[in-house]
Amino acid sequence: MARDKLDAKQVQEALAGLEGWRLADDGKAIERRFTFSGFNEAFGFMTRAALAAEKLDHHPEWTNVYRTVDVRLTTHDAGGLTELDVKLAKRMNAFAGR
Amino acid sequence: MARDKLDAKQVQEALAGLEGWRLADDGKAIERRFTFSGFNEAFGFMTRAALAAEKLDHHPEWTNVYRTVDVRLTTHDAGGLTELDVKLAKRMNAFAGR
Repeated sequence: MARDKLDAKQVQEALAGLEGWRLADDGKAIERRFTFSGFNEAFGFMTRAALAAEKLDHHPEWTNVYRTVDVRLTTHDAGGLTELDVKLAKRMNAFAGR
Repeated sequence: MARDKLDAKQVQEALAGLEGWRLADDGKAIERRFTFSGFNEAFGFMTRAALAAEKLDHHPEWTNVYRTVDVRLTTHDAGGLTELDVKLAKRMNAFAGR
């Protein structure tokens, strides 16, 4: 199911298909920094990602400083990574044009 | 001018009129946590604040985790706080309904 915790092998397989993402130091999340041309493009990305997050009912932890957006994805209920994190990461990559 | 650094007295006067904001530990920024009913409301707030930031050409450093938004305002060019930070803080308070 979408909210079942992925095991270590599943996480490695998922990361292999997720350009730019890395496993967080605590092993419970994936992280990526996105860099854009300026604030307009950065917040445009965040807006598209916010709509996707609402649709998935799964939300990022993210920090924006001008043209950078640092994202951390995890599924608190599962205490780690699930398919929902992988889905949202893929959509974010698509929105960022990668 | 709007981008002149405020002195300590001006900062204290500004903070007196800014509900919920505090001086950051480094003394170079003001910070506030906004808490909303959920992600929809939190991101709605961020969208309004983003439009105001673009209009002022002055942008926040902010982190969103579901229904909370942590904001830090500073003016890098001035190495501290300016009227621009005070203006953006006031608009954010207005958008948050306080």
